[in-house]
Amino acid sequence: MRVEAVDFFYLAMPEITDEVDGSQDALLVRVRAGGFEGWGECEAAPLPCIAAWCCPVSHGVCKPVKFSVEGATLNDPDDIRRINAEVRRLGLDLLQTDHTLSGVDVALWDVLARSKGVPVYELLGDGKSYPKTPYASVLLQDTPQATYEKAKEIRRKGFRAAKFGWGPWGAKTLQDDIEQAKAAREGLGEDGILLIDAGTIWRDDPAPALERAEALRPYRLTWLEEPFRSEALDAYRTVAEAHPELSLAGGEGANNYYMAHDLVARGGVKYLQIDAGRIGGITTAYECRLLAERAGITYVNHTFTSALALSASLQAFAGVERFQIAEYPTDLKPLAQELSKDKILPDAEGYIHAPNAPGLGITPDLQAMKKYLLPVRIEVGGKVLYETPEIE
Amino acid sequence: MRVEAVDFFYLAMPEITDEVDGSQDALLVRVRAGGFEGWGECEAAPLPCIAAWCCPVSHGVCKPVKFSVEGATLNDPDDIRRINAEVRRLGLDLLQTDHTLSGVDVALWDVLARSKGVPVYELLGDGKSYPKTPYASVLLQDTPQATYEKAKEIRRKGFRAAKFGWGPWGAKTLQDDIEQAKAAREGLGEDGILLIDAGTIWRDDPAPALERAEALRPYRLTWLEEPFRSEALDAYRTVAEAHPELSLAGGEGANNYYMAHDLVARGGVKYLQIDAGRIGGITTAYECRLLAERAGITYVNHTFTSALALSASLQAFAGVERFQIAEYPTDLKPLAQELSKDKILPDAEGYIHAPNAPGLGITPDLQAMKKYLLPVRIEVGGKVLYETPEIE
Repeated sequence: MRVEAVDFFYLAMPEITDEVDGSQDALLVRVRAGGFEGWGECEAAPLPCIAAWCCPVSHGVCKPVKFSVEGATLNDPDDIRRINAEVRRLGLDLLQTDHTLSGVDVALWDVLARSKGVPVYELLGDGKSYPKTPYASVLLQDTPQATYEKAKEIRRKGFRAAKFGWGPWGAKTLQDDIEQAKAAREGLGEDGILLIDAGTIWRDDPAPALERAEALRPYRLTWLEEPFRSEALDAYRTVAEAHPELSLAGGEGANNYYMAHDLVARGGVKYLQIDAGRIGGITTAYECRLLAERAGITYVNHTFTSALALSASLQAFAGVERFQIAEYPTDLKPLAQELSKDKILPDAEGYIHAPNAPGLGITPDLQAMKKYLLPVRIEVGGKVLYETPEIE
Repeated sequence: MRVEAVDFFYLAMPEITDEVDGSQDALLVRVRAGGFEGWGECEAAPLPCIAAWCCPVSHGVCKPVKFSVEGATLNDPDDIRRINAEVRRLGLDLLQTDHTLSGVDVALWDVLARSKGVPVYELLGDGKSYPKTPYASVLLQDTPQATYEKAKEIRRKGFRAAKFGWGPWGAKTLQDDIEQAKAAREGLGEDGILLIDAGTIWRDDPAPALERAEALRPYRLTWLEEPFRSEALDAYRTVAEAHPELSLAGGEGANNYYMAHDLVARGGVKYLQIDAGRIGGITTAYECRLLAERAGITYVNHTFTSALALSASLQAFAGVERFQIAEYPTDLKPLAQELSKDKILPDAEGYIHAPNAPGLGITPDLQAMKKYLLPVRIEVGGKVLYETPEIE
């Protein structure tokens, strides 16, 4: 079959807050091929992603994503890998390329797997999907007391693992951070898996992380996530070497395989967190999972939005029994909650699974999305380059 | 003073060819502050850059560039550094940010230096601008004979140095590449400075570069440029270690300081090529120049478009006598040639200089650009987010 149509739907909550909550908007991608429909989501800024899809050619290696996707042959996984490589080769000088490609690549895997009637993880070569322990992923609350309550609530809901991140972390004193970690541990209980996400607060300065490492030890973090920007490899390496007992996690900011590779090989992260909606899709996420297997570290999804994005990010590592933990956002904005009637819910034992259904197993509820739709119209030189299609 | 207005002008040749020639279009940025006008250029895909300027906020660290620029205080260089850092902090999840920031940052330096009546390099702290030996930068011709003729012509025009790149390099056999290098050397003469730009043709595979290193030795390349993508640090390192006599150059693909740093510290490049229109502006270009000074390697501009872009890229290293060579495109498309009446031309001894004039010393000729202007209009959710202003 061939890629017949690719459409983007920019969805947003009526009000966007200053929270670092990626579920406040969404860029849905629909791919039609051979009578099937596939869906993906770019975990990225919607308008620049659409612009990188439809913009005019600048020169030989500064071409829009659509140049390599529209009309492309799509019969097996190697076709997706070829499209993925060509998008990047011809988009070398177009920085936004990886983020646009991500949603498109996810939709390509979905439509191809649907056409064959198998889950995406099977198409990737994994015969089986293993259960994952979901960790409730929430923003750190403003006070230790509120964090304690939040952790209690998460535990009551049946989660054995929780991650608190961004918000006040690192923004005040060492003592404030310690009290937050202490509150989270107490709320979660001694046997819970506790994760802290520093939200790149220290950019590339290892000192505040080094200062906290010892003080955080009593609260037994399974990992400290993103103390630095993904590019700050020296800072990661410094902390990893000084405190091997404090496992570092990172990777959500990676938009290609090289960045993920460097975080592991040069930065020393022990948990590689990949968002299929940013790294270049399921194609690159899967390469990162192979990297984690070879390196003997742990692959984890990064997901802070819809069930569609969660399924996409689960596919790449569903087939590896050793990779047991999975990010599971629990405080999503209504947009992301309502994005599909299909859900990924914990089973009776508290585990989540990649959907045992064709493709990603998640079909967006476009009718429900109508109220969140922001129609986009882009004109360049008097020509309409993009216009959001009607929802039928 | 304050940043009162920022406007973008998307210019393009009537026909865009498949050549890897960045002078086929341009994104001009105009900043108005305190009664002065400053100009910059994003060496990037125009439409995605405009989208990253004006898009709606997605969440706390996925904000458009304008969020941190419009209305900002602008009295001294530290204001620009603060704006630059804030754009990146609040644009963490917006991939295109660095490319948009680049042109804006250049225009901020221009307007600030104009307001003070000094060249930008003085504002950067350099008391003096040193002459640079321009190398004629052209695309590799389709046949060795044509390359030979081109090299002869370059020499006749008075250039002592030339770079040939992209086109057929690496696309055929080892023997073809050798014949091209031989032709270029013969045309340029034994005393010419010869540079080859491989245009990332081998992506991340060191084998073809290793295979060519020995065979290229007789033609005495001053450098082999970009055999790989900027992210392929292992490939750079492999070739740098196996063939220390073959200096590698790279950096034009770097869109932040970390990537430039890694090419030097981990990739082993000996010539760091920075485009102010991509790396995040003159602010980051200058940080890269300091890096090159510390590392004892050579900083070079990357420029393949207008005199405005050339001036912007010269400012960061004009003040360092040891950095003697400068990229100088000689086959620009009419758009880039006509972009300003102000030019940067070789002096009687064949050297070029950063303009000894306020700001960048290059004022775009907007009237001449009218025929290349592609008006842009972006609507989201029924609101006009961007519309190209009239040229007065």
